[in-house]
Amino acid sequence: MQAIVHCDHIEVALATGPDIVAIDDALARIVGASQVLNGSAHVTAVGSTASLTTIEFEPGAVADLKAAITRLAPPDARYAHEEAWHDGNGHSHVQAALLGPSIVLPVRGGTIALGTWQQVVLINHDNRPRRRRVEVTVIGDSR
Amino acid sequence: MQAIVHCDHIEVALATGPDIVAIDDALARIVGASQVLNGSAHVTAVGSTASLTTIEFEPGAVADLKAAITRLAPPDARYAHEEAWHDGNGHSHVQAALLGPSIVLPVRGGTIALGTWQQVVLINHDNRPRRRRVEVTVIGDSR
Amino acid sequence: MQAIVHCDHIEVALATGPDIVAIDDALARIVGASQVLNGSAHVTAVGSTASLTTIEFEPGAVADLKAAITRLAPPDARYAHEEAWHDGNGHSHVQAALLGPSIVLPVRGGTIALGTWQQVVLINHDNRPRRRRVEVTVIGDSR
Repeated sequence: MQAIVHCDHIEVALATGPDIVAIDDALARIVGASQVLNGSAHVTAVGSTASLTTIEFEPGAVADLKAAITRLAPPDARYAHEEAWHDGNGHSHVQAALLGPSIVLPVRGGTIALGTWQQVVLINHDNRPRRRRVEVTVIGDSR
Repeated sequence: MQAIVHCDHIEVALATGPDIVAIDDALARIVGASQVLNGSAHVTAVGSTASLTTIEFEPGAVADLKAAITRLAPPDARYAHEEAWHDGNGHSHVQAALLGPSIVLPVRGGTIALGTWQQVVLINHDNRPRRRRVEVTVIGDSR
Repeated sequence: MQAIVHCDHIEVALATGPDIVAIDDALARIVGASQVLNGSAHVTAVGSTASLTTIEFEPGAVADLKAAITRLAPPDARYAHEEAWHDGNGHSHVQAALLGPSIVLPVRGGTIALGTWQQVVLINHDNRPRRRRVEVTVIGDSR
């Protein structure tokens, strides 16, 4: 069977970082539209102060992840980026780089095959609300 | 040449987290069965308390990684997830989200092209033994 | 349209870790040569003391990321790897495993579609200068 490629993107408005939103529904729509039955979905956050991962998307775990991200690079520490650029988001760049911009998800039977309590989340680390773009590429065998 | 797509999965029993096992042999078998000569293998841990990365799989480095993971989110800290759900694994969710659920590996000449001392490892972060599932998608040119 | 697959690699000399270099230009050349119009580029660092991520590649943010990486696993802490192997790079293995060996990048209109101030960086975590290899697989629809 011949592999097909389907490209699309998502745009989501997020609050001041660390803000965390689930993007499963939007990803599911793109995978559905792709006509890919079995393959994988490649998901990348555009911009150097955003990141992607998976977590159980319930308020407690999300709050715990925000706290851990803040510990990795606290906003009130001293940043060389800040001394040069004075835009207040030195911590945002460090946090996003440590979390990483991309994930790869399995597509099985036309849907994303993750755990029941495992949601894909987009994180805005910037020190102001940002509309973030996520590029999605679905590659696999067609239906 | 036409790209082919091969999907399979691995299941591994792991001890209470952080437990770390190498899955290279199982991945090599899947890549071998895929008939892909050159392309890439997309590997994703299913479940919100598991993660994937690479490391030199010798007891010392594995112990050091377990210690670092525990420092990122210690089991004895306070978690909002725990206060709501009382399942004792607030730290597990945070650890897994920071490490990330997926990696992408090069396939060259029909095998996974990593360093000699670089093994692919699956990590169980949960506070109990878990049988974990890993989805593998191999995409590339056929032999 | 039929998906095509293009494999290549990059080699870069890096200083003692954490050293961070941008590899955007080399990636752009590989994507250009691939003839892929829309799809994704899979990028993996070979070796257990290297990693990949994205960041705004300006000296301040790069210095801040180096400091954060050093905090995750300081060279002067005690490592079980070191006690067995005495090669002085226990921290390097931990840092690289936490950062992760791979990223996935969107290819749109024949180029890598990241943010304007978001560069792809290769990190050497080892305790000596290393020539590092990065495998790149580009998969997508051809022009």
